[in-house]
Order: sequence, then structure tokens, then C-alpha cells
Amino acid sequence: MDKKSLRLYLPGPVTTDPRVRDAMTRDWGVWDEEFRSMTAQVRAQLLGLACGEGSHGCVLVQGSGSFGVEAMVQTFLPRDGRLLIPVNGKYGERIATICEKLGRGHSLLTVPEGTAVDPGAIDAALAEDRDISHVVVVHCETSSGTLNPLDDIARVTADRGRKLLIDAVSTFGAFDLNPDKLGYDALATSPNKCLEGVPGCAIVFAPQDSLRAALGNAQSHSLDLADQWQQFEATGQWRFTPPTFVVAALAEALRLHEAEGGNPARLARYQANHAALAEAMEGQGFVPLMDRALQAPVVISYRDPADPNFKFTRFYTRLRDRGFMIYPGHLTDIPTFRVACIGALQPQDMRDVAAAIGEVCHEMGVTNFAP
Amino acid sequence: MDKKSLRLYLPGPVTTDPRVRDAMTRDWGVWDEEFRSMTAQVRAQLLGLACGEGSHGCVLVQGSGSFGVEAMVQTFLPRDGRLLIPVNGKYGERIATICEKLGRGHSLLTVPEGTAVDPGAIDAALAEDRDISHVVVVHCETSSGTLNPLDDIARVTADRGRKLLIDAVSTFGAFDLNPDKLGYDALATSPNKCLEGVPGCAIVFAPQDSLRAALGNAQSHSLDLADQWQQFEATGQWRFTPPTFVVAALAEALRLHEAEGGNPARLARYQANHAALAEAMEGQGFVPLMDRALQAPVVISYRDPADPNFKFTRFYTRLRDRGFMIYPGHLTDIPTFRVACIGALQPQDMRDVAAAIGEVCHEMGVTNFAP
Repeated sequence: MDKKSLRLYLPGPVTTDPRVRDAMTRDWGVWDEEFRSMTAQVRAQLLGLACGEGSHGCVLVQGSGSFGVEAMVQTFLPRDGRLLIPVNGKYGERIATICEKLGRGHSLLTVPEGTAVDPGAIDAALAEDRDISHVVVVHCETSSGTLNPLDDIARVTADRGRKLLIDAVSTFGAFDLNPDKLGYDALATSPNKCLEGVPGCAIVFAPQDSLRAALGNAQSHSLDLADQWQQFEATGQWRFTPPTFVVAALAEALRLHEAEGGNPARLARYQANHAALAEAMEGQGFVPLMDRALQAPVVISYRDPADPNFKFTRFYTRLRDRGFMIYPGHLTDIPTFRVACIGALQPQDMRDVAAAIGEVCHEMGVTNFAP
Repeated sequence: MDKKSLRLYLPGPVTTDPRVRDAMTRDWGVWDEEFRSMTAQVRAQLLGLACGEGSHGCVLVQGSGSFGVEAMVQTFLPRDGRLLIPVNGKYGERIATICEKLGRGHSLLTVPEGTAVDPGAIDAALAEDRDISHVVVVHCETSSGTLNPLDDIARVTADRGRKLLIDAVSTFGAFDLNPDKLGYDALATSPNKCLEGVPGCAIVFAPQDSLRAALGNAQSHSLDLADQWQQFEATGQWRFTPPTFVVAALAEALRLHEAEGGNPARLARYQANHAALAEAMEGQGFVPLMDRALQAPVVISYRDPADPNFKFTRFYTRLRDRGFMIYPGHLTDIPTFRVACIGALQPQDMRDVAAAIGEVCHEMGVTNFAP
């Protein structure tokens, strides 16, 4: 199998377009005007996608999406602040660990995996604890594929006069995250999910006033977004060596995003991918973990067939050898596997992976796909 | 000019071999065995270059070299520790800022730019302040090109019973950094300097005992090297999304490093580059900032010609348009420009850049290159 034709059905890093990878085949000088203007162009285009021109700032920071989420907490949660963290999976838990290591005040609101966070429960927690200054929400909890009700959580948070931080790592670039509606204090995302770039940096948006007010909060120089924003605005430069090739790939990914028709077109393709996958999988008898209404068109968790011939590792390896890469589930209780709908994939790619999944199960002697 | 033939004479990111860039033209699944074994292979090969097999651990962390330096301070300086920071340029200053934001105790030992740190002064500072628990040294201060006397600093630090942290961002992969001789507690470096990979992660080595003892020191989850090391050892996995393409490029860069003959061969090539550059530049009348004995074969700072026709920006742009990228100096007092000797460059490349520098100066009407 040609490794360049491998298809990743993963909630990131996703399958990239060959043009995105080709953007990484030349060197860039970091001090040079050409690289500086590429950085400026990328930041401006991202700000446009975030509907934040004029009002917001865009900060790029080296690292992964989780580095961006930690940098957001480091920078925007004041040292005496208290963060409410609804937890319904691995990424909510990670934010709790970030706060523990940072020594910042936080409260957990834990709900079962595969269940969406209830805005009413957020409202009640905010009513009860006046010390909570900020709420963070993981928009799509990709460990299960649950889309949390962001609009409603934003509304109750604003109604209670608290500030909102959003982990939109796996949703920015496709979903509507208009700051006029959400009124967030900061939003963190990644280039290698719905934007279909490559991993190596994170992206954070915040109102310019919030960025100015946040100076001095961070207990890390590397992850101090307020400081990095000032440097971008003053000189157009990254403070520390930028991941030049990752930025070049993101610039190309943003050109493709625009050519496709922006956020709405990308969401429409992912929804078409989702529908094609769901139809092809359910048509064979596979059972999703969650109702269709709760699924995001980002990643779908399927329950493992109960048939004792089903062995995940063998299943995974055979699929991989055919050129299809899927993910194990991340749930503690229920055995699942995950198939993502994002990345440079079309509905036919979803039908292809569903067909391969069925064939590999039959090869393993699994005839009944029910959990 | 074909952008793929651009030559970077920069102290990183450096010129890369086309084979290193070609390694980034396919996708990688992060959970997959193929990527996991690439990570394991890279870590093992790096540990071999560090002469740390069996005794030390190798931790990769997302971000730039400075992220690695901050992660080293975060992880290895205990919360009640005190760090002595000799400062003779920008990278020493950066470590001071890291400590300030972290709120960790530190003392500065400031010497003029372009001057090496004096081991005797370190010794005196350690004798005077018993609270200093650790010394950090920037091996090559690339803002001027000064190589600090690492072996002697390591000796006085050990003699005074203190621990040593090394910023070897621009020297690992060429210079002899044997831990038996240096006895360091941790050493941080980068893939995009002497290793000739691409930027997007950092590399830290430490004795396994130090890694075990360091758990709980970090005030950052992302930059907690002790935690990441445990995860590498237990599962072979990165905790957060790895920069897959950067790791693939590093794997290829390490193959080329080995094929060249390892650290001694790479240092020999850089020394040959350095000699070729010095001869060609000084032969034309350019004056280096420092004596040859103090220069590292990493980057040489040259003093700007005093001729009023010399304008750095025009000089830089004309060189760039011919395919040669150099760097401005970073000194506060003396106008300089810098030409690096590291990266996928040969002595002929150094003679080429020196010739282009002379020609561009003549084009600008600069005839006397003396400062």
C-alpha cells in the first residue's frame, strides 16, 4: 500500500490534502518578511473565520491543541479566579489536571461519558458558588463524540455574570462559533482538526480588551498568550522559534478552506460524511454509542460487536493494512471504536471505510455486529 | 529563484536536506504502531547521541527549543530551589523571565554580550549564596555566537555540590556533551539546529533518577517532562497530540546524522564551514565581533561596515533575493550581522555566501568593510 494514500478516520491529526503536505517542502527563514507576512495572513484569515475582525485578537502558540487550552487557562483565568469544569470525558479531565498543576481554583461538574453537559446544572452550580469566576466548556468531547450544548451554556454563564472559556479544538473551522452570540473571553483551537492543517501549534482567540487585561496572569513564559499577542501586534514576530513548516501547511489549508466555501461548506461536507457513515454502518447492523441527535459530525463512537471473534487489535490492524486508520474508544466502561468524519475526506471515503469494516469483521468470523 | 534552493545561514531553523522535507509528505496516525515505533526509535537514537543509554531518559515535548528550556526549569528546579543564571545575551535573559513568571527563586550573574561566562565568577557566586541549588548555562549564546566554557562551569558547579541544567539548544548533535563528564541534572535541545531537523518540538535528557524525583515540580501540565517521560516509558505514547510531521522529519534527520558519522563528523563539517567562512570574510576585510578563539562554529557575528552606504535592511534584502538568508545581530550596543555555519551546508556554501556578501556591499557602494 502506498503510504501517501493512507486515509485517517481520526479526530485529529486528520487526513491532509496533498497540497497541504507539499507546502512543507521548502525552508523558511523566521526573521524574513516572507514568513512574517505569512504569519500575518494566517492570523488575519483565522480572525475572519472567527468573526473577530476589529474586536478580537488571534494568537498562535507552539505546541498541540492541549497546549493552547492550557495557555488559555494560564492566561485568562486570573490567579485568584475559580474555574467551573464540566467533565464528560478525557478532555474535561485534562483541564482539571491543568488547574491542579497550576494551583488555580476549580470545581468539577461530572456527568457520565456519552452524556451531554446540562446547561441547567451549570446554572445551578453558578448560583450556588459565587466564587466561580469562569466556566470552561469542551465543545466536542471527542473521547466519546459528544457535542455539548455550547449556546445554552454560554447563555447561562453570561446570565450569571461569569466569563466563558471554550475548548473548540475539534470544532473550529466548521461550526458556528460567532463571538457576538457566545460572548467568550477566550476560545482555543487547533490547526489539525476541522481546519485540516498539520499538528504543531494551537490557535487562541480573545477580545482585545481581555488580552490586554490578561497580562501578568500566566505562570509560564512559553504559554503566556497576552505577551505573545503584544509581540505579534508590535513586530509581527513569534517570541520563540515558530514551527515554520506547520505555519506554511496551515496557510495552504486556509486557502483550501476558503476555496471550499468557508465554515458552512466545511460543516456541510462533514454532515454529509456523517450521514454517509451512519447509513453505511447502521445498514450493516453496527450500533452507535449515542443517539444520532447527540452525535457531532466530528467522530462517531460505535459499540464493539458482542461476538467473541471480535478482537479490536486484530480488527484495527487489518483495517490499517487496507489503508484505513481508525481509533479505539476512550470510554472506561463500554467497549467502543471511533470513526471520524473530519479531514480531507468525502462521503465516498466514509462508505469505503464502512465497507472495509464490514469485510474485516467477516474475515474475523464476526457475522453479527450487534453489541 | 526557486524557493526550494534557498540557503539559510541562520542559527535555526536551519537549512534542511530535501530528504528531511520529503519525510513530511505523508500522513501519520498517532495511535498507530508505526508512529509509536518511530517515536521510540527517535528517542533511542537521541539517547545514543547523548551517551545516555541505560542511565538517562529522553523526553520529547511539543513546542520550540525555548519551550524545552522552560520545561526543563519547570520540571527540574524544585519549587523551593534557587537558580543561578549567568546572562551574556538574549537566551540567558529569557531564562530569567521564565523564572520570574514561574515565581521560582533565581539570581543573575550578568556579563557583557560577546564575553564568555567566567567559571571563577560562578564559583564565587556559589560560595557566597548557599541558597542557590542549581546553575543553568546556555552553552552557545547564539545572540552573539559566544560559546560558554561548559566543562569548567560543570566542574565548579559539581565541586560546590550544586546541580546543573544545560541549554544546549544550538549545540547538541555536534558538540561533545557527555553526561559522565558534565554530570548534568537535565539538558535541553532542539531538533532544528545541529540535528538539522525541523522546528516543532524540543528534546530533554536527564538521569532516570532525576526524572523520577522531579514528579510534582512542574506548575504546567503541558511542560511537565517527568509526567511525559512516565507516559513514554509506560505506553510509548505522547500525552498530547504529537507534531507527527516534525517527528517524521527528525527521524530522517537522525538517519542522515548517523550516515554522516555522528556528532564528531557533524562538528568537523561545521568547523570546516566556520574556517571557510572566516577565511572568505576576513579576506575581504570584514571584522568579526569576537576573537576566533571565542567563536563557536555555530554562528559568527560580523560588525557592520562603518561606511554610511551600508544599510542593513537593503543588504539583507539583496542577499535574500540572491537566495542567501542571514540574520541581523541581537546586540544592544554594537551593530552586527550574523552568519550561521550549521544546517545542511558545506564549506562551498560558506564561500558562496561570503562572495555574495562582498558583491552586495559593492552594489550598495560600500567599498571599505571595516567597522
